[in-house]
Amino acid sequence: MTRIYATYDIETPVGLDRAASVLAGEQSTGTFVRLAAETDELRARSAAVIESITATGSASKPALPTRKTGATYDRGLVTVSWPLGNFGTSLPTLLSTLAGNLFELAELSAIRLVRMDLPADFARAHPGPQFGATGTRRFMGGHDGPLIGTIIKPSIGLTAQDTADLVRSLVAAGIDFIKDDELQANGPDCPFDARLEAVMRVINDHADKTGKTVLYAANITDEIDQMKRNLDKMQRLGASCAMVCVSSAGQAGVRSVRDHSAALIHGHRAGWGVYSRSPDVGISFEVMQKLWRLAGVDHLHVNGLANKFTEDDATVAEAARAVQTPVSDHGGPAHTSMPVYSSGQTIWQIDPARRVLGNDDFIFCAGGGIMSHPSGPAAGVESLRLAAEAAQQGIPIEAFATKGDPLSQAMAQFPRPNISL
Amino acid sequence: MTRIYATYDIETPVGLDRAASVLAGEQSTGTFVRLAAETDELRARSAAVIESITATGSASKPALPTRKTGATYDRGLVTVSWPLGNFGTSLPTLLSTLAGNLFELAELSAIRLVRMDLPADFARAHPGPQFGATGTRRFMGGHDGPLIGTIIKPSIGLTAQDTADLVRSLVAAGIDFIKDDELQANGPDCPFDARLEAVMRVINDHADKTGKTVLYAANITDEIDQMKRNLDKMQRLGASCAMVCVSSAGQAGVRSVRDHSAALIHGHRAGWGVYSRSPDVGISFEVMQKLWRLAGVDHLHVNGLANKFTEDDATVAEAARAVQTPVSDHGGPAHTSMPVYSSGQTIWQIDPARRVLGNDDFIFCAGGGIMSHPSGPAAGVESLRLAAEAAQQGIPIEAFATKGDPLSQAMAQFPRPNISL
Repeated sequence: MTRIYATYDIETPVGLDRAASVLAGEQSTGTFVRLAAETDELRARSAAVIESITATGSASKPALPTRKTGATYDRGLVTVSWPLGNFGTSLPTLLSTLAGNLFELAELSAIRLVRMDLPADFARAHPGPQFGATGTRRFMGGHDGPLIGTIIKPSIGLTAQDTADLVRSLVAAGIDFIKDDELQANGPDCPFDARLEAVMRVINDHADKTGKTVLYAANITDEIDQMKRNLDKMQRLGASCAMVCVSSAGQAGVRSVRDHSAALIHGHRAGWGVYSRSPDVGISFEVMQKLWRLAGVDHLHVNGLANKFTEDDATVAEAARAVQTPVSDHGGPAHTSMPVYSSGQTIWQIDPARRVLGNDDFIFCAGGGIMSHPSGPAAGVESLRLAAEAAQQGIPIEAFATKGDPLSQAMAQFPRPNISL
Repeated sequence: MTRIYATYDIETPVGLDRAASVLAGEQSTGTFVRLAAETDELRARSAAVIESITATGSASKPALPTRKTGATYDRGLVTVSWPLGNFGTSLPTLLSTLAGNLFELAELSAIRLVRMDLPADFARAHPGPQFGATGTRRFMGGHDGPLIGTIIKPSIGLTAQDTADLVRSLVAAGIDFIKDDELQANGPDCPFDARLEAVMRVINDHADKTGKTVLYAANITDEIDQMKRNLDKMQRLGASCAMVCVSSAGQAGVRSVRDHSAALIHGHRAGWGVYSRSPDVGISFEVMQKLWRLAGVDHLHVNGLANKFTEDDATVAEAARAVQTPVSDHGGPAHTSMPVYSSGQTIWQIDPARRVLGNDDFIFCAGGGIMSHPSGPAAGVESLRLAAEAAQQGIPIEAFATKGDPLSQAMAQFPRPNISL
């Protein structure tokens, strides 16, 4: 396969055929005045091709404000393909092409990039995750089951020493994974270096005493050169997991970290809502997560089932599965990452989270689900581990729990959410 | 001023006061269960503060699909502030904070970041444009008036030699500025190195013969390390303008180019529609252009008056003015860039383009407006230069043109667009 395929959900006042032509033209050889240089040979080599058009509906009003108007606004799925010769395997130019000026076309009153089908050459050309799930477990000195994790809270405001003190109580509680909040990076009130030093003293002490290495995802997100300095600091202190806000640092920023890093890359998708919230403009997670994985994220946030945000459970499940699906349907390295569930997660979500994937290669982050356990954080972690064990054995937690154990206490404490899968 | 202010246009089913609290909490010290560590002292230091709430309307249906529902969906402008102590002057963390998880809040059925007010420290902490308009003119060996430019078309499909041949005819026509299309970066069919070599031979020959240096904005957009290699290649060949697609490379990518570059940075905003198209989710250009300027763009695309895309003239005018407005209202370097007008531009748009700004520090890119001139490209360039001269002297082109001159020919050739300023 030597072409890249993209599918768009569009709405248009000028008819689906015409709109698809404009889109394919704008993103390849077309200009609004046909030029002499646009020869048949050039078009055969470089023009985008409309592969299919499927009408899905029609409306009397445009979904988005648009300069062109029509009697009806036709909705449909349009698949367009480009030859690899136009931009090779460059991800930034793939973005400029598949997700560039087309969002502003006057002929479109809705435009979402919903699917992208990449040749195996893309999978081969990019480094992808350096460690993935297997490497993550290796960093921990071996670990079975999902990683039980949490996020430093409050998100922002703790000093470096406050953070280390909280980490001390979390590692004592038996946690596997701790991450900074996306708001906490390198501000004057909690500088990265001081925080990393204070936290790694606790993590390393705990490893020396117990043999267990807790992963600390330090939020290195910053300008490229600063991220490199942060990574160097991590290496000196034996820190093995770098959190990067993939939208804030950009996909090219993630790749730069990957090229420079001996650490796991924990991808946080703060800002994701800009792409996901509107049904009428944006880019699907199915598409974006391929770019982030090609760039090298080992872990990628997918929200949580029954989360406190807007995404429904079907969307979250699809996102989690996407991260474990090969990046190209046509061969090359699979470049799978570990999905990270978080947001309002308790013992009730572990079994469905596992069922979505059919395996334990995920990170499960809980906040209140650990800290608000009636018998304290250690019981909170234990209750989640018991729930994970129950899920692995295919036993409902109601049957798995024994009276008065941490799991049954958690079941009494946390209301059971509605989850629709 | 030691706080950063952001204004959001929101819609909510839970009441504006409650929605503003959730937003401010999510993006600073709040958690959905209040923690012991969230002390009054911590909140005083780090919490986001709701500065103002102004109701603007109400609807019976939500603008965007949302999990929470209400009897009415209240719309309003909410201004929130954060202390600099939380994240200092880091642009990526500013993005994670002002434009992060909040887009996904279930309490919001619309959320756009519309304004951002930065302290002078932000202007001081960032390099900003290295050259701006003055430096751009210096690279050209001095130049009066707006830069008359064009874009290589077809966008993609020309070989390196085809491109150089087209450039030869353009420089012969007297053009000031030529840019690659955003689709043309470093694909196998037109590799960056080969194209740059072929084009710079033409540009440098022309400079040797005529003393005039035409700027060629070479599209370097790629992964960070590749952009650096492209910049090195440019320096060896005496190329002085690097085009970067600011969304595809990311703001951190732009900054990385700025730190490594002895060249002008020509910022192209391919993909901008994702942020701009929906009135209910996204980020305004007023906000984003500040980030790109702080990161270092010397030129920034703003669309054109009477363009072929969706933005109306008021939006384009506001964008062009924004790029020339100091990045902070409170002092520090102004970091102004040159606005770049393009898309369906002819002699009719130069006067209004200049009136919007009140000066000639802009780049005016025309395609058909040059190539389709009845007396050829040289007359096309000359007609635009005459139109610019008329604008500078405050004379309507109808009065400035003389019978049969390139300007009057262009007026006869190109239909006069409706422009509403």
